Amino acid sequence: MTFREDGHRAVEWAADYLERVGELPVLAQVKPGEIGARLPKAPPEQAEPFEAVLRDLDELLLPGVTHWQHPRYFAYFSGSAAEPGILAELLAATLNSVGFLWRTAPASTELELVVCDWVAQLIGLPPGWHGHIEDSASTSTLAALIAARHNTGRNVVVASEHAHSSVEKDARMLGMELRKVPTDDAFRLRPDAMELDDAAVVVATVGTTSVASVDPVPEIADRCAAVGAWLHVDAAYAGSAMVCPELRWAFAGVERADSLVVNAHKWMFTPMDCSLLWTSRPDEFRDAFSLVPEYLRTTDEGAFNLSEYGPALGRRFRSLKLWAVLRCFGREGLQAKIREHVRLAELFESWVRDEPGWELCAPPQFSLICFRREGSDEENEALLERVNAGGEIFISHTRLNGRYVLRLALGNVRTTEEDVRQAWDVLRDLR
Amino acid sequence: MTFREDGHRAVEWAADYLERVGELPVLAQVKPGEIGARLPKAPPEQAEPFEAVLRDLDELLLPGVTHWQHPRYFAYFSGSAAEPGILAELLAATLNSVGFLWRTAPASTELELVVCDWVAQLIGLPPGWHGHIEDSASTSTLAALIAARHNTGRNVVVASEHAHSSVEKDARMLGMELRKVPTDDAFRLRPDAMELDDAAVVVATVGTTSVASVDPVPEIADRCAAVGAWLHVDAAYAGSAMVCPELRWAFAGVERADSLVVNAHKWMFTPMDCSLLWTSRPDEFRDAFSLVPEYLRTTDEGAFNLSEYGPALGRRFRSLKLWAVLRCFGREGLQAKIREHVRLAELFESWVRDEPGWELCAPPQFSLICFRREGSDEENEALLERVNAGGEIFISHTRLNGRYVLRLALGNVRTTEEDVRQAWDVLRDLR
Repeated sequence: MTFREDGHRAVEWAADYLERVGELPVLAQVKPGEIGARLPKAPPEQAEPFEAVLRDLDELLLPGVTHWQHPRYFAYFSGSAAEPGILAELLAATLNSVGFLWRTAPASTELELVVCDWVAQLIGLPPGWHGHIEDSASTSTLAALIAARHNTGRNVVVASEHAHSSVEKDARMLGMELRKVPTDDAFRLRPDAMELDDAAVVVATVGTTSVASVDPVPEIADRCAAVGAWLHVDAAYAGSAMVCPELRWAFAGVERADSLVVNAHKWMFTPMDCSLLWTSRPDEFRDAFSLVPEYLRTTDEGAFNLSEYGPALGRRFRSLKLWAVLRCFGREGLQAKIREHVRLAELFESWVRDEPGWELCAPPQFSLICFRREGSDEENEALLERVNAGGEIFISHTRLNGRYVLRLALGNVRTTEEDVRQAWDVLRDLR
Repeated sequence: MTFREDGHRAVEWAADYLERVGELPVLAQVKPGEIGARLPKAPPEQAEPFEAVLRDLDELLLPGVTHWQHPRYFAYFSGSAAEPGILAELLAATLNSVGFLWRTAPASTELELVVCDWVAQLIGLPPGWHGHIEDSASTSTLAALIAARHNTGRNVVVASEHAHSSVEKDARMLGMELRKVPTDDAFRLRPDAMELDDAAVVVATVGTTSVASVDPVPEIADRCAAVGAWLHVDAAYAGSAMVCPELRWAFAGVERADSLVVNAHKWMFTPMDCSLLWTSRPDEFRDAFSLVPEYLRTTDEGAFNLSEYGPALGRRFRSLKLWAVLRCFGREGLQAKIREHVRLAELFESWVRDEPGWELCAPPQFSLICFRREGSDEENEALLERVNAGGEIFISHTRLNGRYVLRLALGNVRTTEEDVRQAWDVLRDLR
């Protein structure tokens, strides 16, 4: 009874939040330690009603939330959760399936295979790849490196200097050697600069974090094939955009990859966490990860355990939220959102190009614009801090060719043209 | 508007589900592939209403759900989600915070530290340990092994033959050597049998998966200290029971551990996934995991990024559900549940002990009973399959000293004495 009432209260809270999130400061306007200091040092002794939790969420925690759902969140890469995905998380938590074996979660296991296959079709991957869901691209790439080392017996990871930092971190965690390859003037890995003789794996990026550049996968695939190196493609951000055929040029050559990651929790409007990892070599993956002790043996003929394809044993029912998003958007809905984001990015880019005193810093790609104000790095950094402190928009930065560069990344499911105009107004006002 | 209505529908579904889950077959009564075959092969083209998702959840997926929330789920270790935790997952998905930096999620970051400290106090860990949340014990132990190797420069993992399979899998993924140590007649690691000279880390288990045995941590800590090996304690299941002082004998010596894992998603009634990982050596942890590229640098003085203490960069707002559970239970509520589970385990054990034709197979511990019917392994395995096929209860098995053994594990937040009685009736009826 209480659950039903508390649940309806929670839904009201959530609906109100999503209606007003655009009026809140995007970036939390608190200092480190401020939120923690508001909370009791000691754990609660007696039970409190759920209403107290909701109240404290509003009063104590909300000022410390950076609003990823805010339509003017333009930092890093957008990660916004569409409504069907949010509600599916409620349902997944209600069921609380733990999918370490097929037997413990048949629906979760089989729906995960199905939705990964649906997305594979949507983004144009070859048929027959085996997909499953990890928490983050860090983990998906970690799994790929493990599979690569297991199957090649080699210990070297090759990636461009613009590959995501998780590649370096994963390699370090595994005790593998990372060899960074220089990029060309469009920030793309230079295949001619790769030394591959002892490489276990090359990580090619389709949509790098700094500038969304696309490594030349066909040439990289040729080189990998010649030396028997594993090819892992990191399309964490840009992969979702392949739902649009006109953007699929960026996936040239990925049909030759051994593994590939796309984060549905980025540009596919699925709540965090939902990182899709496919492999064209499922047997080799299974060989690297399968370990079934006596207490996990079952007699289910034909059963398959997704824990045998990745690092973790315990697995949430993550497929439910992706299923809900895919059903409630459809291919058409996803295409419409992504096309609008690309259009808005081109619009913003045209404003920067046409405005004296501003410059574009990289070839525009997908929904990311790298730009800066004429002037010193320090001036641009100060501009970023002023802009974010205002709370109207939230942007982030990178460094390209040694220079401090501002990044505006679109992809939030709630962003409109008006939001992008407001971002540009704020930037010009505070310049 | 739609979200509000759909949300209320989803809450009604969830409330109805939790009211009737005890009437459903615990173990899904489907064959491998059956659920997948009901789903369309191709992705949806057009958007559908959320109601269609709810309808198909009922009609297509629910028969394939093994009900972890069922009060007669007695398999493996229980992982059940209390109502406040379920609703907090809705709220977390609504906010959709991604905590890779303090700046991107101050409330998530700081609440995570606070609730980990609260649980540390509840289970009697020394003050000052640094806690954060990983998805599963597999990942928590993976992180501990990485930190151990990073800080010792050694490559050998030592654990008992009854350590969880994830220790072996983690070691294999990392390219570390696992040295298994024999156990005594109560399935506890034998410290005298450890060879530690080149050991990076010893994984001691408080509550092993097969029998819930407790390794002699004080002696293991002595040996680790002597050779400079890292001590990681796996208390994934039993750690939650330390909320009860009378059970805290099992934590003797853990104050000397370098790291320790407890899964709040097991016996602390928090929805999957919520694995708590503490370290008494946060600087060494940070040294192993910190890697901050330019695009993630911020100017927030005094900020701390939890992604610098573990493998993944992207992190969900997992602390919210644990906070909700701790608030809505309090220390007293947790103690009451755990004491009741221990009492019910002792009751079940007494029934087995007193019934001719049945035997206990290990010293009873916490809420786990290992037992078998007199007769062959095959007969016991057939009994387990009959019992689980009936759908009234779900139990699992292990193998002890070469013999097939049945396991009944308590810990579900909804289990009553009546449920345990029913389990025993089913077992005797189907013997």
